[in-house]
Amino acid sequence: MRDSTNLGAQIAFRVAYHGFDTTTYDISDEALKGARGRFEAIAENYAKDLPGVSKEDARKAFDHLTQTSDLVEAVKDADLIIEAVPEILALKQETYGKIKDHLKPEAIIVSNSSTLLPSDMAEYTGRPEKFMSYHFANAIHVMNIVETMPHPGTSAETRAAVIEFAPQMGMVPVILEKEQPGYIINSLLVPWLVNGAQLWVKGVATIESIDGIAAVITQSNNASFAPFRMFDFVGFGVAQALFSQSPDPIAQEFARRLKEDFIDKGKLGVETREGFYHYDEQGNATGLTAAAKATYPDFEG
Amino acid sequence: MRDSTNLGAQIAFRVAYHGFDTTTYDISDEALKGARGRFEAIAENYAKDLPGVSKEDARKAFDHLTQTSDLVEAVKDADLIIEAVPEILALKQETYGKIKDHLKPEAIIVSNSSTLLPSDMAEYTGRPEKFMSYHFANAIHVMNIVETMPHPGTSAETRAAVIEFAPQMGMVPVILEKEQPGYIINSLLVPWLVNGAQLWVKGVATIESIDGIAAVITQSNNASFAPFRMFDFVGFGVAQALFSQSPDPIAQEFARRLKEDFIDKGKLGVETREGFYHYDEQGNATGLTAAAKATYPDFEG
Repeated sequence: MRDSTNLGAQIAFRVAYHGFDTTTYDISDEALKGARGRFEAIAENYAKDLPGVSKEDARKAFDHLTQTSDLVEAVKDADLIIEAVPEILALKQETYGKIKDHLKPEAIIVSNSSTLLPSDMAEYTGRPEKFMSYHFANAIHVMNIVETMPHPGTSAETRAAVIEFAPQMGMVPVILEKEQPGYIINSLLVPWLVNGAQLWVKGVATIESIDGIAAVITQSNNASFAPFRMFDFVGFGVAQALFSQSPDPIAQEFARRLKEDFIDKGKLGVETREGFYHYDEQGNATGLTAAAKATYPDFEG
Repeated sequence: MRDSTNLGAQIAFRVAYHGFDTTTYDISDEALKGARGRFEAIAENYAKDLPGVSKEDARKAFDHLTQTSDLVEAVKDADLIIEAVPEILALKQETYGKIKDHLKPEAIIVSNSSTLLPSDMAEYTGRPEKFMSYHFANAIHVMNIVETMPHPGTSAETRAAVIEFAPQMGMVPVILEKEQPGYIINSLLVPWLVNGAQLWVKGVATIESIDGIAAVITQSNNASFAPFRMFDFVGFGVAQALFSQSPDPIAQEFARRLKEDFIDKGKLGVETREGFYHYDEQGNATGLTAAAKATYPDFEG
């Protein structure tokens, strides 16, 4: 089942867990303390979610994890710098500006940005040919996916090295040949989720009907379609933010329902074991929630 | 695995197979002969695809199947008329005009139309309150899905009767509360397929990368995303028709590749055991085809 710890900590833990010396940087000693708590929670999740992994196994990651609030210290000996700062271009620019003169010549920088393209950031790094995007899906210890996306100036050697590193930290690389906003996963996933949400908000069908198709289709061709199961998995914070930004009134109505009927009541999907579905301790869906079956007035947008 | 017989024959066979006396109408004796051949092929598919169904079991459907080229004869004693004539509004209108004065007062009419809304046709039936859409997914003996869609004038009794009949013929009803172009399945499926096709045509990623995500996501949340597996399943005739009608140059390029590199070479997807993937006799994908791995010049539309 997914954890709710932040992605930067998950990535660092993942790399360390696979035996690579990893230094994590955060802005203050207080932030580092918070990060330490997240690492502990991630170790618990590894032991809980991964078959055959004991708590002792998971805690071996700590042998390779160093924390610092000194940015130059964090990067100066690194072969690979994984940037996961908040999604604000000016903040990325500032961060790259602080490190670019302190790196080993051969060091590669990758950004975990979900929404910015590597070409938006490449010039700030001072080494565009050694820079690209490396996008980790959330709950990376169970999802195991990293999308690799070069910009036009990324060298072939950098691409190859970044792709090659993925299996070394137990990740499956999903290889993009060129830039694509949303990478592959969100390019496929978001329109499908938007359409599922619209069918519900417009009152075309119940969640039970919409998701119910998944099981039947799955039997015959192994591709299932359960958008509301996916909303639970993605988490309602992300979904609400996505839909509330849309100019479409139907999307906004969906965001409103997510906020008022779920998020404000502490129901965030799988991570709280309640969203459109109830989930057991293993993260298996056990049935639709009452909120998912609630009746709303027809909404035509 | 899917068959390539037409949907009207599949529906009639399905109803008869479940023990309901079924009269099928086609326009000429020659067309009826063709339909008879399709029924024979469907009976073979039942025995081949459905566990525990022998050829003798499948052929019991013929005890309940009558064919006629006399339209009034076909409908005059029917409780349920399932219309599956070609998707031309004028042809639907003409057909309804010929039968509407010859039906039992309580008879219900349903249309299997994929692209027309029931409100487009309701007035032609002379009994709009006893009319709605009943949309069967192709390869209905393995898909088992029928979408039920009323128009605003459909009575509650008609809706209930049509929904109730679905499990009596071994189908799972997917219930729509109101009209929606594309019903539920195509509303979800088509934009997702379009996005998958675009990623490939634009050269963002290979089919291997795009579909490869499916297996990984499936492990953790039981929802898979393999658009090109789905194209193979849908069949390239349908996909090519859909994409070639789009004004988008990327969609047209996809349609061109489907036609020139697949359809013109007799590769139509699962039904010919070769499309983007190879398939074994059981319809299981065994690997990508050479055509799916072919390199094209970059296409930006």
